[in-house]
Amino acid sequence: MSSSNAYDVTTWPHGDPVDDIGAVINDIVADVRARQSRDDLTDGGRPGAVIRIPPGDYRLRTQVVIDVSFLRIEGAGHGFTSSSIRFNVPSTEVPDLHELWPGGSRILHDLPVAHGAAEGEGAAFRVARTGSPRISSVEFVDFCIDGLHFTGEGPDGNPENSYRNGRTGILVDDANDSFRVIGMGLVYLEHGLTIRRADALSVHGNFIAECGNAIELRDWGQASKVTDNLVGAGPWGHSIYAERHGGLLVTANNVFPRGASSVHLDGVTRSSVTSNRLHTFYPGAVRLTGGSSENLVGANHILRDHEPWAPFQGVHNDLDDLQGLLLIEGNDNTVSGNHFSEIVDTREVRPAGAVPVIIRVAGGSGNHIANNHVVAKDVRSSSSDDCFEAQVGALLGTPEEGRLEVVTVLVDADAVANTVLDSGTDDEVVLDRTRNAFRATPAVPTPGPGQSTRRAEK
Amino acid sequence: MSSSNAYDVTTWPHGDPVDDIGAVINDIVADVRARQSRDDLTDGGRPGAVIRIPPGDYRLRTQVVIDVSFLRIEGAGHGFTSSSIRFNVPSTEVPDLHELWPGGSRILHDLPVAHGAAEGEGAAFRVARTGSPRISSVEFVDFCIDGLHFTGEGPDGNPENSYRNGRTGILVDDANDSFRVIGMGLVYLEHGLTIRRADALSVHGNFIAECGNAIELRDWGQASKVTDNLVGAGPWGHSIYAERHGGLLVTANNVFPRGASSVHLDGVTRSSVTSNRLHTFYPGAVRLTGGSSENLVGANHILRDHEPWAPFQGVHNDLDDLQGLLLIEGNDNTVSGNHFSEIVDTREVRPAGAVPVIIRVAGGSGNHIANNHVVAKDVRSSSSDDCFEAQVGALLGTPEEGRLEVVTVLVDADAVANTVLDSGTDDEVVLDRTRNAFRATPAVPTPGPGQSTRRAEK
Amino acid sequence: MSSSNAYDVTTWPHGDPVDDIGAVINDIVADVRARQSRDDLTDGGRPGAVIRIPPGDYRLRTQVVIDVSFLRIEGAGHGFTSSSIRFNVPSTEVPDLHELWPGGSRILHDLPVAHGAAEGEGAAFRVARTGSPRISSVEFVDFCIDGLHFTGEGPDGNPENSYRNGRTGILVDDANDSFRVIGMGLVYLEHGLTIRRADALSVHGNFIAECGNAIELRDWGQASKVTDNLVGAGPWGHSIYAERHGGLLVTANNVFPRGASSVHLDGVTRSSVTSNRLHTFYPGAVRLTGGSSENLVGANHILRDHEPWAPFQGVHNDLDDLQGLLLIEGNDNTVSGNHFSEIVDTREVRPAGAVPVIIRVAGGSGNHIANNHVVAKDVRSSSSDDCFEAQVGALLGTPEEGRLEVVTVLVDADAVANTVLDSGTDDEVVLDRTRNAFRATPAVPTPGPGQSTRRAEK
Repeated sequence: MSSSNAYDVTTWPHGDPVDDIGAVINDIVADVRARQSRDDLTDGGRPGAVIRIPPGDYRLRTQVVIDVSFLRIEGAGHGFTSSSIRFNVPSTEVPDLHELWPGGSRILHDLPVAHGAAEGEGAAFRVARTGSPRISSVEFVDFCIDGLHFTGEGPDGNPENSYRNGRTGILVDDANDSFRVIGMGLVYLEHGLTIRRADALSVHGNFIAECGNAIELRDWGQASKVTDNLVGAGPWGHSIYAERHGGLLVTANNVFPRGASSVHLDGVTRSSVTSNRLHTFYPGAVRLTGGSSENLVGANHILRDHEPWAPFQGVHNDLDDLQGLLLIEGNDNTVSGNHFSEIVDTREVRPAGAVPVIIRVAGGSGNHIANNHVVAKDVRSSSSDDCFEAQVGALLGTPEEGRLEVVTVLVDADAVANTVLDSGTDDEVVLDRTRNAFRATPAVPTPGPGQSTRRAEK
Repeated sequence: MSSSNAYDVTTWPHGDPVDDIGAVINDIVADVRARQSRDDLTDGGRPGAVIRIPPGDYRLRTQVVIDVSFLRIEGAGHGFTSSSIRFNVPSTEVPDLHELWPGGSRILHDLPVAHGAAEGEGAAFRVARTGSPRISSVEFVDFCIDGLHFTGEGPDGNPENSYRNGRTGILVDDANDSFRVIGMGLVYLEHGLTIRRADALSVHGNFIAECGNAIELRDWGQASKVTDNLVGAGPWGHSIYAERHGGLLVTANNVFPRGASSVHLDGVTRSSVTSNRLHTFYPGAVRLTGGSSENLVGANHILRDHEPWAPFQGVHNDLDDLQGLLLIEGNDNTVSGNHFSEIVDTREVRPAGAVPVIIRVAGGSGNHIANNHVVAKDVRSSSSDDCFEAQVGALLGTPEEGRLEVVTVLVDADAVANTVLDSGTDDEVVLDRTRNAFRATPAVPTPGPGQSTRRAEK
Repeated sequence: MSSSNAYDVTTWPHGDPVDDIGAVINDIVADVRARQSRDDLTDGGRPGAVIRIPPGDYRLRTQVVIDVSFLRIEGAGHGFTSSSIRFNVPSTEVPDLHELWPGGSRILHDLPVAHGAAEGEGAAFRVARTGSPRISSVEFVDFCIDGLHFTGEGPDGNPENSYRNGRTGILVDDANDSFRVIGMGLVYLEHGLTIRRADALSVHGNFIAECGNAIELRDWGQASKVTDNLVGAGPWGHSIYAERHGGLLVTANNVFPRGASSVHLDGVTRSSVTSNRLHTFYPGAVRLTGGSSENLVGANHILRDHEPWAPFQGVHNDLDDLQGLLLIEGNDNTVSGNHFSEIVDTREVRPAGAVPVIIRVAGGSGNHIANNHVVAKDVRSSSSDDCFEAQVGALLGTPEEGRLEVVTVLVDADAVANTVLDSGTDDEVVLDRTRNAFRATPAVPTPGPGQSTRRAEK
């Protein structure tokens, strides 16, 4: 019993948090629920609690179920370290490794599930409460959920590279308000964070990587924000995904590979994807599908290059290069002020010989695509056994580069009344000019004699 | 007495924090002040303290007055839940509600004030210290201040919908440096956060909603930031307001209705409003008034639609639709790369029959308005008794929509030497072209025979 | 010994943290290292620890050396107050000051070093571990490192204004992953934060000011972010500097003077500088050097004006006004949607009589400079003994202003195949139009008779 509504899993008198922190937290939640009296009509509420998880290893054998508002679960260390690297080190090198596992306030997600399990079964933390009002102010802060192992079929035969194990870090199943997920480290989970029906949610400052999917906002929701996260999903999964949301703000995120998409909005309206840095190994980095409309994609840096790490070479999200690095199927969106870098080996373009498309309006009208800059280079892709050095090397530039021919904007024949301005030269943009508005980026002139600068240079 | 400068309101030997946390914190502050010796000239300082507020309900009957630097007041839960919804539920449904009040580390603001009280009287926390240096490094972190009830006249006769009760959450009255307000939950206050004369202030990660005004930066100040907040004020109040500030950065905020404005800068210079998502029910979402100059409004998503929730229908901020969704009265501002959605019922436009204005330059010169995209739709506004579902429904799109005629940019006759580029077609922009620079967004061509795409489509 | 991996420097049984917190923390780190068993192959890790520093003064006489992953060092107050102001107050006023020193959880950096010392010697906290995997998840949170005094030669003869003392706050010397530096206050250090070979680093929410250099990302790195910081370096140092990084995201920072640069990227590729507010007293606010390529500089507010504070007047970063307020030496960068304010006294322009340059492409091709707005004013610079009031006054505008002639974009003769759109009128942009693409911002027309507005004004 705590007299201050502040609990510590290591001092709670029942259960052993090292053996099963899930059972301990459920027991604490029951205590919270039992000892807090009913709200009175005057003004006395039910203020919830904080459950603290000091640094350490805590196995979770029982799913935590949260059905009370105003609960904060807080650790003291996000604990991310790359398990992917560790699982791809030759066994002879393992004894030399400083550490083998993530750390911090670390929860070892050990529910007996397999990949393919329902998310409701495979979630370490599951929030579920129906009725009114919606469950509010649950906060997950500064701890680590480690899915331990991937157990599916890896692209190279290594199950640890499959990004599948049926495990979810946090699943919010019912409509919710004013939740926060801040500072967490989620690693080696098939789904990191899945939240259904969110209102005024904050997902901020997390490190969610080496997960099949990272952040999924499901069903519908509004007025939420996904800000300032480091995110990277698996090649078949979502880094940041939202469906049927309105008023979502996705900003200041650094999304790295190898998600099938970096930001995917499906049926999302009046939302904003700005000032992010988005890096992918495949087409389809940003996808506005399912009639996503009136969204702003602005001031982002969007890079596509090739997977440099040997175990994942040959893996692909199966979108071809005509799909666009940014795909729009919807109306009235704005794509403005973005930088695109398309750095690919022409020998690997799909379908072979195609001219890759950067921004594709596959359907819809009223979209406004203006003031985007596309850089496209042809490189010879390389391979390395060291993931980090390969990536740094690739980012800093590979030597054998030439210009790559691309279509900077493709507006499909049945997508009309769109506007494309200053997003590619006359030769780089493909659209029906009788049915869409267009102004080309002026082309760099071919040098010729007789012209001079307008004004004397200093 | 604490040997470590770390205090907990629940273990402090004097007073009862449940009955009056204000008296307890004042007593702790007196202890901080008394036991810290004077700084020595060599290097020994007066390091302040942290006062912790565990989750729970704490009534505040005495105003906290802070006059020492280096004080952090920290809770363990922002505790927001919608009081607005609860106060509009039929009484027969109240017994079925899971909870009636906000929670977390919750301060029940119970000073005996009425709406109309001076802010200095009505503030739960008041920071006041003159002299040199300015008071520094006071931090408010992760707790809830609940104003409990609104007591004015609500638009529907319900005082709880009036957004008025004379209560302020935090008031900083004197010049200050390096303050932080982070992770707070402020609810049902007439003024959430009011800070005068701020330098290098951070207002970050807060949830400030269902307050008459949310964030007000008063008098003057510089080099501050308001970032990553969820904010929503009342229909007569400010969501984010600053006066006579220089170098303010407002970014990554999700501002939802129903403030009279989303971001209002008055006499503000050389400041930045970028990458926000701003949603309002009225004209005047963004206002640069009082000679606000050299500011940047860029990469924002700005939406205006109609109030869908029955109790507030008919409420308005009394600006007509000719004022602009973004209003400029000042010089040399930049408005660039924004998306505007104007989703209104033409029957409700003010004055009746007017063509709504999106960006209005009502005065000033040198303003640069470029590369903005305006979407305008005529809808049939609807009404619902369920605020959340109404809002989600509206955001995700109402079915009966048509295009709405708007003036995307209006430059008043006496505002000259402004530049408007790519922010509306020839027909959508109104300005004196002999005195301002203008380039129209190319209009979507009217389909005709004989033209073909420039380049074969793939 | 702690049973929960949570340590408090004030209760650790060995050493005296008030006299030497460095020795105490090293002793705790040794305990962490010793008592954590080797990881097992199954799944048991080495979860590290949290070391808490309550508010108070703690002298550091011994350098802290960190060689374990998963260590969080956490205070309860960033403690910034201006030492610069205090060191420039007349001695007769010192007795009237409320406080003389920074506070919070304050570490008095008292290593016996002088300016010119190697960073490895002068660092209060040094992280050093080679081998595999890279050291991970070390976190510095919410405390203050105070370098106490500057000891070099100040511009006015006052050593306290020299920004030099050989002291570094935090130095990470070896390749690292998933580090966090959050909420810190760093003051009066020659180098605030220096991190070599960072991967997925987060530098967020810090106050790093009155330091020679603030944030330096050295050697190389990738996929990191510097977000939401308040930063200001000395006139010879860096505010935010990165070298050979890929995929860096610099956003939502408020960088104030007086750094030699605000953001300097050297050999950096595919990175993003967006939605920042950058204020400098000199040319060269933003510098992309060393072949920095494919970077995005977008939606920033970039201001240059004059030093208003007497002790630093006459100090300069020695770049002349032809270098540009933003300088590019590299390829394929995007500069888009930025606001520039150049507010200078023409009598102080270097070289005398020159026309200042705002954006300069000194070398490289493929750069895309579009949709930028430049405001330039000629002012009479002023001087004040009160730094804060001088700055606020300057920001809010000095009365004697006229328009200043500037070159908004200068593309050097040997920089070809660049594109400049809507970033200056025909008269304001200097480039070889036979070798670069150019479209002028339409000039405001000279008033003449006979033209009328296109559409009736409302």
